[in-house]
Amino acid sequence: MTDNQFGTLFGFTSFGESHGKAIGCVVDGVPPNLAVTEADIQPYLDRRKPGQNRFVTQRREADEVEILSGTFEGRTTGTPICLLIKNTDQRSKDYGEIAHQFRPGHADYTYLQKYGVRDYRGGGRSSARETAVRVAAGAIADIALKSILGDEYGIYASVVQIGTHQIDPANFDRTQIDQNPFFCGDAKAAKSWESYLDEIRKAGSSTGAIIEIVGNGIPAGLGQPLYGKLDAEIAAAMMSINAVKGVEIGGGFALSALDGAQAGDEMRMADGKVEFSSNHAGGILGGISSGQPVTARIAIKPTSSILTPRKSVDEAGNNVDVITKGRHDPCVGIRAVPVAEAMMACVLLDQLMRHHAQTGLLSSE
Amino acid sequence: MTDNQFGTLFGFTSFGESHGKAIGCVVDGVPPNLAVTEADIQPYLDRRKPGQNRFVTQRREADEVEILSGTFEGRTTGTPICLLIKNTDQRSKDYGEIAHQFRPGHADYTYLQKYGVRDYRGGGRSSARETAVRVAAGAIADIALKSILGDEYGIYASVVQIGTHQIDPANFDRTQIDQNPFFCGDAKAAKSWESYLDEIRKAGSSTGAIIEIVGNGIPAGLGQPLYGKLDAEIAAAMMSINAVKGVEIGGGFALSALDGAQAGDEMRMADGKVEFSSNHAGGILGGISSGQPVTARIAIKPTSSILTPRKSVDEAGNNVDVITKGRHDPCVGIRAVPVAEAMMACVLLDQLMRHHAQTGLLSSE
Amino acid sequence: MTDNQFGTLFGFTSFGESHGKAIGCVVDGVPPNLAVTEADIQPYLDRRKPGQNRFVTQRREADEVEILSGTFEGRTTGTPICLLIKNTDQRSKDYGEIAHQFRPGHADYTYLQKYGVRDYRGGGRSSARETAVRVAAGAIADIALKSILGDEYGIYASVVQIGTHQIDPANFDRTQIDQNPFFCGDAKAAKSWESYLDEIRKAGSSTGAIIEIVGNGIPAGLGQPLYGKLDAEIAAAMMSINAVKGVEIGGGFALSALDGAQAGDEMRMADGKVEFSSNHAGGILGGISSGQPVTARIAIKPTSSILTPRKSVDEAGNNVDVITKGRHDPCVGIRAVPVAEAMMACVLLDQLMRHHAQTGLLSSE
Amino acid sequence: MTDNQFGTLFGFTSFGESHGKAIGCVVDGVPPNLAVTEADIQPYLDRRKPGQNRFVTQRREADEVEILSGTFEGRTTGTPICLLIKNTDQRSKDYGEIAHQFRPGHADYTYLQKYGVRDYRGGGRSSARETAVRVAAGAIADIALKSILGDEYGIYASVVQIGTHQIDPANFDRTQIDQNPFFCGDAKAAKSWESYLDEIRKAGSSTGAIIEIVGNGIPAGLGQPLYGKLDAEIAAAMMSINAVKGVEIGGGFALSALDGAQAGDEMRMADGKVEFSSNHAGGILGGISSGQPVTARIAIKPTSSILTPRKSVDEAGNNVDVITKGRHDPCVGIRAVPVAEAMMACVLLDQLMRHHAQTGLLSSE
Repeated sequence: MTDNQFGTLFGFTSFGESHGKAIGCVVDGVPPNLAVTEADIQPYLDRRKPGQNRFVTQRREADEVEILSGTFEGRTTGTPICLLIKNTDQRSKDYGEIAHQFRPGHADYTYLQKYGVRDYRGGGRSSARETAVRVAAGAIADIALKSILGDEYGIYASVVQIGTHQIDPANFDRTQIDQNPFFCGDAKAAKSWESYLDEIRKAGSSTGAIIEIVGNGIPAGLGQPLYGKLDAEIAAAMMSINAVKGVEIGGGFALSALDGAQAGDEMRMADGKVEFSSNHAGGILGGISSGQPVTARIAIKPTSSILTPRKSVDEAGNNVDVITKGRHDPCVGIRAVPVAEAMMACVLLDQLMRHHAQTGLLSSE
Repeated sequence: MTDNQFGTLFGFTSFGESHGKAIGCVVDGVPPNLAVTEADIQPYLDRRKPGQNRFVTQRREADEVEILSGTFEGRTTGTPICLLIKNTDQRSKDYGEIAHQFRPGHADYTYLQKYGVRDYRGGGRSSARETAVRVAAGAIADIALKSILGDEYGIYASVVQIGTHQIDPANFDRTQIDQNPFFCGDAKAAKSWESYLDEIRKAGSSTGAIIEIVGNGIPAGLGQPLYGKLDAEIAAAMMSINAVKGVEIGGGFALSALDGAQAGDEMRMADGKVEFSSNHAGGILGGISSGQPVTARIAIKPTSSILTPRKSVDEAGNNVDVITKGRHDPCVGIRAVPVAEAMMACVLLDQLMRHHAQTGLLSSE
Repeated sequence: MTDNQFGTLFGFTSFGESHGKAIGCVVDGVPPNLAVTEADIQPYLDRRKPGQNRFVTQRREADEVEILSGTFEGRTTGTPICLLIKNTDQRSKDYGEIAHQFRPGHADYTYLQKYGVRDYRGGGRSSARETAVRVAAGAIADIALKSILGDEYGIYASVVQIGTHQIDPANFDRTQIDQNPFFCGDAKAAKSWESYLDEIRKAGSSTGAIIEIVGNGIPAGLGQPLYGKLDAEIAAAMMSINAVKGVEIGGGFALSALDGAQAGDEMRMADGKVEFSSNHAGGILGGISSGQPVTARIAIKPTSSILTPRKSVDEAGNNVDVITKGRHDPCVGIRAVPVAEAMMACVLLDQLMRHHAQTGLLSSE
Repeated sequence: MTDNQFGTLFGFTSFGESHGKAIGCVVDGVPPNLAVTEADIQPYLDRRKPGQNRFVTQRREADEVEILSGTFEGRTTGTPICLLIKNTDQRSKDYGEIAHQFRPGHADYTYLQKYGVRDYRGGGRSSARETAVRVAAGAIADIALKSILGDEYGIYASVVQIGTHQIDPANFDRTQIDQNPFFCGDAKAAKSWESYLDEIRKAGSSTGAIIEIVGNGIPAGLGQPLYGKLDAEIAAAMMSINAVKGVEIGGGFALSALDGAQAGDEMRMADGKVEFSSNHAGGILGGISSGQPVTARIAIKPTSSILTPRKSVDEAGNNVDVITKGRHDPCVGIRAVPVAEAMMACVLLDQLMRHHAQTGLLSSE
């Protein structure tokens, strides 16, 4: 497995840079006979698309997805699906002046250290623009999971904290998530975030966020313990998203401060089925899904590109002050919501297929 | 790549159950000509060994490692090294009475859901006993890294929080870590933890912990961005450890609440080298190491096995009260310290080899 | 690793169907700072291009390669290179009439059995058209190997048998390979093959071929024994090419009839270097290259599409007579020559990188 | 995936050297609830065991397999199964005198070139002794396939040529294979081979062989085309066996000399099922099984260790004459028969699982 690939059976290989000709991916291992057209994938991309409101970058990208292979007469054939998204709004002049400086908080320095060469246009390969291809790949995973698992299945991510402002969990209502510019399930919090973000945006600053991802209708049994655990693969998937610096499953870091009686989820039979009293485990025990909702939270650092001049160095070894002009998200955490959903969908479909391969051929009599 | 394997070029395949004949692993991709004997690996295992003080499980396991292959006259030959650790203190009677009950917080329920069969003796494959083989594999990685990177290199994990008790970072002194039963770098905190843990232990309860892992002397350039990022692989490695429910890199979740100017690490030249003003990034930018210390923190949930009766169900679908007798760690977080170090070492050596493969053959003139 | 991928560190993921919008691949793990432009890759594709003479299919495809990502200012950046080849001459009407019949010798039947759906246009994914992307990926491997290994390195494939007509090894001259339409190193044989192939072509029939591939200047030490052996990976690479039904290394099947004294290659020192008396091993011992030329031979079956009506069945379970019109190669073995070279180059670069990763970091004392 | 591993979902990681403490493997991805004990695996090993008659090496090895993990109460649990075979008859003194010489035809030279160090005892890791672990792993695959596919399933390998002596296909009778020391399906040929092999053995020489492997009862649809083709993976699996220098599928090299009408297998309906008129394709079309028997042939070179002195060099760069005493097989091809069956079983189970994963979750309505 080379390095720009994600997944074991269902997976994708991603390519493309921020200001190259196109970005895209090859989605492999797709179940055949699945109804998938560009029109099915586009809505997923539209949720992540820049320029939709004043709280996200004003870069203008249509983010139109094109299917180059792997479907026939509107159905998947089981062969690889190449998804292409052309870069239309490249405006490379924006970036010209910092071609040889290292923007603090960005990967400019480390890419050059690693490869000895870098595409400095808009961050090149390290740009969050690449996350569009994850969303496109995740769309196929999500469509497949819906077909396989039915209506109970659904993945829902939302922003639960922006900067220092958290939602009130009591107000959380899933149907609100798409009713505000923040993918926030607490309508009241979303309202208050508007002025908060406006301030940050006007100050040329930025802030971080915390996103919660919930997978409903996930059957028990997914996860390949040691070392393909469901939580380990979710952690890798989430941490691979640009600007993510932390991942928790279920109760996460807060569990460290509890005692064993508080932290464990008790079980009781109810209507012939096992019911858990709580979900501190985030739906995963020993690396395997329990049938409860799979829950994770991720921490997104503040956008590194801000208007304030920052101390840095250039390729020639001079001290410089870097000023990032460009068009940037005051909080990259917002547009990371559909990306987190996509990564979760990819992990779950891949795990479902691996689980089915090992346990679905031989009946346990 | 099958599922009980970890790593791409340097890696290991693990096997064994808590109360089977033995646990072990096959370490593959080891650089040849490395001086490694059982005596070199044993000290790593001894740090994780149960029964060393009253704050960890009193199970008596010698955890003696035996090398079955892959070395010749005290040196690695580049062929796979099988490391075997026999289980000596199995006492399977301890577990007999809960053979058909699901212990809350454990993987009993999910293993049965997944496989339709389970080895109920001491948690079988899901037991934290398996982490001994990670420590053994990690020992080889650590020895290799020392040979390659020299004296600047070192991985140091320590407990920074037990239950609600945090260390005072100002007191942190790396040389203290092995001077107390808690792998704690703050001698004063360690002292106070004794009575705290004694209370928990005597109450038959348990508590969680937070561990910090620091990798020093790691060269810039490690990490295979999209999707073999250094932070993504550290996240997976850490989350794969039993009882871990969260992973952060550098500033982690706390970064979400900062603004961009606070969160980014500025750079300046100093003595001809790049120096960072801070390390919120945890030594990783864009998935690639920057040359700063690589830092991560992990959250460990409280030991699920406690003396308090817990509500649960059994395999037949009856409600039961589960009482775990056995011999358990009041805080599994403590013995996870050498395990976290081992996983970090495995990730770093694997990444170093992959980096060298791609960039070490063709000079950039 | 998903299934439409080839390679471990250096590799590619392929996509596309015969009559879809495009075929292409994403080449991953490419060493950075390598000078590669479309103009460097195109000549490799031109050698495989259809329609160049009367002995190959008259389908008209420009096979123009486009680089979508992974290079910057004419150099590789170490990030994935997407290579796109648009399908221009699709003429899908040629295939319409056999949309629901299974062409004998083709994959029509097995694709439908496997996936329950198939793209019947020109064989869809199973078409040899896909081999163009291997040639494009192999071009990058070849360019990288030349940069790393220098002038001694070179991969040369040639047709050594067409139907029942073999070359005379005594006449073999490598410089002749590109001087005739058959990639044949024996000018005299090539001349005689013209009338032979003309007969077959006019009869609407087809024939098979044997190709020999030689890799010169390959250093000793490549190959990851058990199970990433150099010969095992060459075998897989070659057998994955359309219509290939056999692979031999060095002496191959003929060695079975020899005795041990004849078959082993003896060694002697010459000018301070080890010299072998012969190369029955094909440059590979124990799965590792010996420094001798790496040699392999592959058997190509006759083109399955012939004008003679063939007995078959259709999707509805009726007996039918299949007549393949279309435009086909009388001997697909000819255009397989650049494909075999490409696959060899990909295997060698990948193995070189893996070898370097394991043995290049730690000096042997 | 590290290099001493075989397989994607079902697979094994092998370890051990000819004269180390033990050889063994960790078998991963095994379907749970499969009845497997040491007594089930041992008969497979007994067929490959040395010392059983005068035509194979007289080394005395019990080759007793021990299961260290992964089963519980006689059934697989879905967790990794470690299979251990201790080396008992090591007699390292036999090999002492050639510790620093390179035996022609062996991997002594290439291992030293690669690793800079080698275990010279009996060929170390490159010894055919390692094939015992493949047989043990293959036993589990075979047992699983029988449980899944039922009585129609069976893999049968046999020697069809020893040196220049071929069987008469007309005499072939599968039930004869285990009735003679050569795994030969032609009883008459087997009889004549006795004196032939006796001569070779007494002369201290050796000879090669060709083995045919047939898989019956393999459902259509196995194979992950491009690049996980069934034939490509069989080719790699077979070529990875010690001393194998060639692999053919179905008609193999002979197909190259045929014309298209002869080489293609025609189809007709018979009793509502598709029947093929012949099986030149070896049961594989486009990399996917067709439901016909899967057939392959492999070429084994003559045993390299012979009594005749051979020209070689030593580690110090001196010309030497190597005389191999030891106890060797006059024809290693014989004992390769159970090994070839094992590798075929491993490939088929792995492919079956991958096929089921992709196509078994979503019904094609």
